Amino acid sequence: MADLPNEVEIQEEGPREGFQIEPRPIASADKIRLIEALAQTGLRHIQVCSFVNPRLVPGWADADDVAAGFRPAPGVHYVGLWFNDKGLDRALAHSDRLTLSGSIALSASDAFTRKNLHRSHAENLEAMRRQTLLHLSKNVPVRRIGVMAAFGCNFQGDITPAQVISALRDGFRIADESGVTIGNISLSDTMGWATPLRVEKLLGEVRSRWPHQQITLHLHDTRGLAIANAMAGLRMGVTKFDSTVGGLGGCPFAAHKGAAGNICTEELVLLCEEMGISTGVDLDALIEVGRMAEEIVGHQLPSELLHAGSLNSLRSKATGVH
Amino acid sequence: MADLPNEVEIQEEGPREGFQIEPRPIASADKIRLIEALAQTGLRHIQVCSFVNPRLVPGWADADDVAAGFRPAPGVHYVGLWFNDKGLDRALAHSDRLTLSGSIALSASDAFTRKNLHRSHAENLEAMRRQTLLHLSKNVPVRRIGVMAAFGCNFQGDITPAQVISALRDGFRIADESGVTIGNISLSDTMGWATPLRVEKLLGEVRSRWPHQQITLHLHDTRGLAIANAMAGLRMGVTKFDSTVGGLGGCPFAAHKGAAGNICTEELVLLCEEMGISTGVDLDALIEVGRMAEEIVGHQLPSELLHAGSLNSLRSKATGVH
Repeated sequence: MADLPNEVEIQEEGPREGFQIEPRPIASADKIRLIEALAQTGLRHIQVCSFVNPRLVPGWADADDVAAGFRPAPGVHYVGLWFNDKGLDRALAHSDRLTLSGSIALSASDAFTRKNLHRSHAENLEAMRRQTLLHLSKNVPVRRIGVMAAFGCNFQGDITPAQVISALRDGFRIADESGVTIGNISLSDTMGWATPLRVEKLLGEVRSRWPHQQITLHLHDTRGLAIANAMAGLRMGVTKFDSTVGGLGGCPFAAHKGAAGNICTEELVLLCEEMGISTGVDLDALIEVGRMAEEIVGHQLPSELLHAGSLNSLRSKATGVH
Repeated sequence: MADLPNEVEIQEEGPREGFQIEPRPIASADKIRLIEALAQTGLRHIQVCSFVNPRLVPGWADADDVAAGFRPAPGVHYVGLWFNDKGLDRALAHSDRLTLSGSIALSASDAFTRKNLHRSHAENLEAMRRQTLLHLSKNVPVRRIGVMAAFGCNFQGDITPAQVISALRDGFRIADESGVTIGNISLSDTMGWATPLRVEKLLGEVRSRWPHQQITLHLHDTRGLAIANAMAGLRMGVTKFDSTVGGLGGCPFAAHKGAAGNICTEELVLLCEEMGISTGVDLDALIEVGRMAEEIVGHQLPSELLHAGSLNSLRSKATGVH
């Protein structure tokens, strides 16, 4: 079996992903309560909000209130999300509490770029080039290339590693031309097309070309395979994952109404910790926060672990000899 | 990466597992409807009912009606479950339509045997010895040793491979003494303690001692890791899995109220088929049956795939070049 990493870094995206998709409005105070509770679990990277157009994403009309409202905990990095200059300017207003860093965000699927961004791939490259220079002009570093739909796309079907490599090459070209140094490649299974074998194949291809880049996996559990895909990533030495507590969030894309969202943080933490991979997270504390998240959204979340409880809580009560 | 098998055999246990745990009564006609629909999906092994004491499991008070009521499809093996001589006699009354076969059923956790069966391990061995002879006296073959709680136990904590090996040795001793030939070892993660590494370790230990036995994995998704554990089993060459459509069922054990049940058949089929492992199952047809199961039980089932739909259904509509 492949060597597993000693530790992984988890970026918790529950607040941002979760609250943009809930059908009923969530009070800013509840969003803040969740963010503050997450910071007490040992998570060190929390995405707190999305600076998007409130007409497009009403759930984040209060992004500025949330970003300004939570009490930052020492040692925790809080990040926001934005897609354009207006969003960046809003994020900059909170640079005292948010860690600001830009991304060259591409998609391996032209059909997805057209559907999601209403741009051709070439137009998107041009937009990313402009956005990279804009970030630099405002002293916000750009260190990451993200590739969405890296395993498949509802609108285009299967995506090959070659298509992802091609998108990454485009991203590195923009980085070179803009004079920025990329340190992280983020591969997203945006619509739940990955399998463990596809993860291994793609990671192998990316690694062989860019051996010194850190790789992040952003996995969705749309079809229930996210945890198996995460395991495949761990086997390939991936040390960075995005996830959401309770599996907060969902899938806004056509044909996925009611489908699950991101891989669930507590199940990822369980997988890692039970195999000796350190996450820095107190799992029982995180499960409590997952229960708080369910209470806030007012419905059951996809996490199974949330409803079963951790193994350590049972170990401490077990009567047997270990 | 390890070689994966070319094909796997899935035993669908949704009707039996699912309907014993639902809080409200399920009509016999609905149980039969589900069984008949499952048989049209390409599944070749379906566990249809449990011949248990109706006072203990009211959900199966109608086991005889269900066993007598469904229309068997050609080429499909239907099985039942029983735990004692009374149950076996009831099953024998349906030997024209059920494939009858006995098991030496043990647990790797003494604490679980006491809690679940109200017997010591030694008493359980004695009961299994009697039951094996009883099966033989009625011309019902005994070909399998099953070990419950093979990865961990809520009452005893972690279970080591050595404890499972010890239970298996006890089972093979009973088989030898009774003159039966075992062909299958079934390892159950009854309470959701397995991880991919534990699966690999245990399978390695079992394989090295009994290299010619077929191994079945019976996985529960109590903490969301079942599909990653199944993947670990596939990597180790496991070709037989138990599962339930939609993830029907649940966990009757203390501290797991509301927890998930077995690994979900359609997600297991997706995992296999997307990696080129043949299951014989028409996934889109199975997803339709999963939706029927949700309608019958009257609530959402744990399966994510059920709510997202298959990849093939999207591939056929995708506009992109593959």
